[in-house]
Amino acid sequence: LKSTLEQESHSNRFEPVIERLKQIVGESYVLEKLDEVESYGKDTTPFRKRPLAVVFPGTTEEIQELVFLANKEKLSLWTVSNGKNWGYGATVPLRDETIILVLERMNKIVAVDEQLAYAVIEPGVSYAQLNLYIKEKGYKLWCDTTDGPPGGSVIGNALERGIGETPYGDHFGNLCGLEVVLPNGEVMQTGGGASGLSKTWNTYKWGTGPYLEGIFSQSNLGIVTKAGIWLMPEPEVFVSYVFELTDERDFPSLIEMIRRLALQGVVQTKLHLINDIVELALMTQYSGELLTEGDCLTLDHKIKLCKQFGIACWSFAGGIYGSAQRVAADQTVLKKELAPFGKLTFITDAKAWQTENLLKLIGPGSLFNGICKDAIRQIFGKSIELLEAVPKIHAILKGNPTEYFVRHAYFKSQVKKPDNDIDPVRDQCGLIWFAPVAPLTSKHVTEVLNLCKPLFEEANFDFYVALLLTNPRSIVILLSILYQKENEAESIRAQALYEKLCAVTEAHGYQQYRTGVAYMDRIMNRSPKYKEIVNLIKTALDPNNILAPGRYGLG
Amino acid sequence: LKSTLEQESHSNRFEPVIERLKQIVGESYVLEKLDEVESYGKDTTPFRKRPLAVVFPGTTEEIQELVFLANKEKLSLWTVSNGKNWGYGATVPLRDETIILVLERMNKIVAVDEQLAYAVIEPGVSYAQLNLYIKEKGYKLWCDTTDGPPGGSVIGNALERGIGETPYGDHFGNLCGLEVVLPNGEVMQTGGGASGLSKTWNTYKWGTGPYLEGIFSQSNLGIVTKAGIWLMPEPEVFVSYVFELTDERDFPSLIEMIRRLALQGVVQTKLHLINDIVELALMTQYSGELLTEGDCLTLDHKIKLCKQFGIACWSFAGGIYGSAQRVAADQTVLKKELAPFGKLTFITDAKAWQTENLLKLIGPGSLFNGICKDAIRQIFGKSIELLEAVPKIHAILKGNPTEYFVRHAYFKSQVKKPDNDIDPVRDQCGLIWFAPVAPLTSKHVTEVLNLCKPLFEEANFDFYVALLLTNPRSIVILLSILYQKENEAESIRAQALYEKLCAVTEAHGYQQYRTGVAYMDRIMNRSPKYKEIVNLIKTALDPNNILAPGRYGLG
Repeated sequence: LKSTLEQESHSNRFEPVIERLKQIVGESYVLEKLDEVESYGKDTTPFRKRPLAVVFPGTTEEIQELVFLANKEKLSLWTVSNGKNWGYGATVPLRDETIILVLERMNKIVAVDEQLAYAVIEPGVSYAQLNLYIKEKGYKLWCDTTDGPPGGSVIGNALERGIGETPYGDHFGNLCGLEVVLPNGEVMQTGGGASGLSKTWNTYKWGTGPYLEGIFSQSNLGIVTKAGIWLMPEPEVFVSYVFELTDERDFPSLIEMIRRLALQGVVQTKLHLINDIVELALMTQYSGELLTEGDCLTLDHKIKLCKQFGIACWSFAGGIYGSAQRVAADQTVLKKELAPFGKLTFITDAKAWQTENLLKLIGPGSLFNGICKDAIRQIFGKSIELLEAVPKIHAILKGNPTEYFVRHAYFKSQVKKPDNDIDPVRDQCGLIWFAPVAPLTSKHVTEVLNLCKPLFEEANFDFYVALLLTNPRSIVILLSILYQKENEAESIRAQALYEKLCAVTEAHGYQQYRTGVAYMDRIMNRSPKYKEIVNLIKTALDPNNILAPGRYGLG
Repeated sequence: LKSTLEQESHSNRFEPVIERLKQIVGESYVLEKLDEVESYGKDTTPFRKRPLAVVFPGTTEEIQELVFLANKEKLSLWTVSNGKNWGYGATVPLRDETIILVLERMNKIVAVDEQLAYAVIEPGVSYAQLNLYIKEKGYKLWCDTTDGPPGGSVIGNALERGIGETPYGDHFGNLCGLEVVLPNGEVMQTGGGASGLSKTWNTYKWGTGPYLEGIFSQSNLGIVTKAGIWLMPEPEVFVSYVFELTDERDFPSLIEMIRRLALQGVVQTKLHLINDIVELALMTQYSGELLTEGDCLTLDHKIKLCKQFGIACWSFAGGIYGSAQRVAADQTVLKKELAPFGKLTFITDAKAWQTENLLKLIGPGSLFNGICKDAIRQIFGKSIELLEAVPKIHAILKGNPTEYFVRHAYFKSQVKKPDNDIDPVRDQCGLIWFAPVAPLTSKHVTEVLNLCKPLFEEANFDFYVALLLTNPRSIVILLSILYQKENEAESIRAQALYEKLCAVTEAHGYQQYRTGVAYMDRIMNRSPKYKEIVNLIKTALDPNNILAPGRYGLG
């Protein structure tokens, strides 16, 4: 009864607005009922909001109309591309009574230029879609992807300045040429505009005059409706590799070496240096056969599990792209530098293919799995589960998206890891991302880990660490709080840990490279002058503050 | 008498302002007399202005005071770093009655981090100064330079988005962390601020929240007083190379090949593909023994001169940096791809050193020069002048600045090319740069050249073309109008040609990657929406329009 009453008063108040929304985008593209919009106010984090409505515009013109309406009625719009920003906020707006714009219907691949190696796409285009399109057309191009959901938006991730895998993994850095609906409803193109006006719209990033594209990333100063994205030409030879560190005491030396190799250009991929918990979260889960109950793993239990699965304390994967001679040259350097510290395995296309076929025969689901499992472990010192990762790693370093790596989100979920159609929000997975960035030295990385690890231990959570090489001088320290979402006490503890992590790292001078919606309105509090300036710009462009107020501290 | 009267009225009107300027920076750091300020209103271009005064602030605080004063008195400030932007405007302001701020006294090297390979510097720091400092301290780092004057400002060039030589040649792309005096006089640091507040100020370019550094490039939204700049770690092996195209008909194939090699990562340097006139302008000059008089070279005369000096129709130089294996691998690819089209010569440190020593023995100024000149030409098919370029090319690709390449500015000057202390403004050289950017395809490059070449011919100027590889997808088509500055008719023709070049390339969708002061107030006229938006930002940050009004279309 209460819910019905709520829904009625809610409807009455905004009825005329909802009517206008329907007129603009069509009735079937507006969600307004509480039970329909509710799920758009949820993520894997404990942060929840109640949106007013969810709207799915299909064209730039419709977005313009929505923005005009918002200005007239003083409404708040919260834009997401495909809404797969799991762990950072998904589709959840920062405030209640917001109209969410989901741009998933705007999924046109406007152009692909094979010669100049770029695509022009709309924000609803996903990694999977772009990848498939390029393959179907036979273009000799690779499109970088994240290890997140294949349904994630290429533009959405780039504007959040997300990190991929290949040498094209600085996603914002590889955007070139934007079309933006401004907060006043007008459409602007950066870099001199589309091809009639400027032939370098998608080939020359800086344009003429002040470089403006940056202000549309991690902000709320416009709605990007088209963007150019640079693609990698298929290399002559590609080899991926996996490195496993033998002795955790060599971790500082490894960090120093990664910097040197990255500065030399030998490491050009966005290495993900992951610890044992990350691998465990991929291979197994709390509700599975292998894990006993408990708030988090004990050290003994973790060691036992790592042995069982053949997991190293730290490991990473990377790729080498280029001429046969170049690949061989870089392999020589990698061998020389890394071999003294652990196990380095190169993976060619042939090896990845063989592994995949072997897994078909003996992997999970196969009749022979039971018999072979132990044999494999004894012969190779590796679990079948770890072997399963090999072709996935190889593929993602070629830009092929996979759901495989997202499965870590189910570590503490009651729901069994699905083999496909992964949806951690639907499946009530508990996951909060926290990602400060540090200079790429062992001193800085160790400092951040030493600040954060005790907080995880104190709060009884497994210390999940992935270090993402964002450039040769900086590394993102991606921590994940994996928690049981059904458990309210644990959810509260997870949120409290998140707050502590934000506070302690900021106090020590480590900024977040990107942040979750729950923290966005506070992210700039330690940079008051910067906040003041970007807010002067916000007011100039969005005097009615209709676009995502509070996002990254703006408005 | 007229001049004295002018000077008096001029002085009276602004006397109180001049007084305040002197109070702020000290009497000796203000120029106000007409004959003193006059030279700051001149460049190698025909565009001239009469500044009100020239001020040399020494600190960020003084700049803040100057900005406060400008706001109070509604003055216009025009900031230059070292003022070596020859051919684009040097120190010349866009409008008369402007106070020029020259930041050359602010030349502190604040920090160099060898491990993370960056420096933090002030805007007065020049390429020569930074290079020398790094060498003296023994840091194993290379700092990219332009082929322009060694006294040029590292920050100034980066904010104009100039192009260097090495893989670090995207100068703006390698800026990381700015300190800016805003138009209201306040100081802001990007990227979370200096090290106490954000440890990644100089290592992580995008910061948190909207990326703002871009709006301070090619604009007038702030005065940058400090910046981080990324440096290249000294590679294990370095080899440079020179390629000379044999047959001009292969030019389109060469362009296609450069794109492919750049996209593959084999070409990582900012190749300068130069035509014969560029080399002639380096080797000789109109007033020299070799050139007859005339408005420009006839085709026959040019061919004769090219033969005489051993100059190819097109040539470029590049560098390979990395492990011994990597360098060898890339040499193999370059040989395979380039050898069919011309002459490829690799230059090692040893070879560069030998050449330098040989030149000491037989080069210009040596007793043996006369005897050896012809012998060299007959044995190698190269002139001594061309040989002279070899060690310079090798050095600049290691980031060592040189005055050598700037000497082309003297092509049509009456003054003999100096061996050092080059100053084309002082020496009345006539030079206007014009630099549209095109997608890196033979179709686009040819289109631009075909648009521009007839205009040069019609106006009787030598067609000087340098193609600068700015990224693997775009190339800057740098044209230089070299003219006799003493000749008024030729100056007028040069300016008219410049205007035509701007108009015709813009009409065909080729934007200028950077422009000269004479054209700045018009540069955004074909992007009215973009201009509107940046001007909203301009008004928000600089309501009194005190900073360089009109610069790049802002204010």
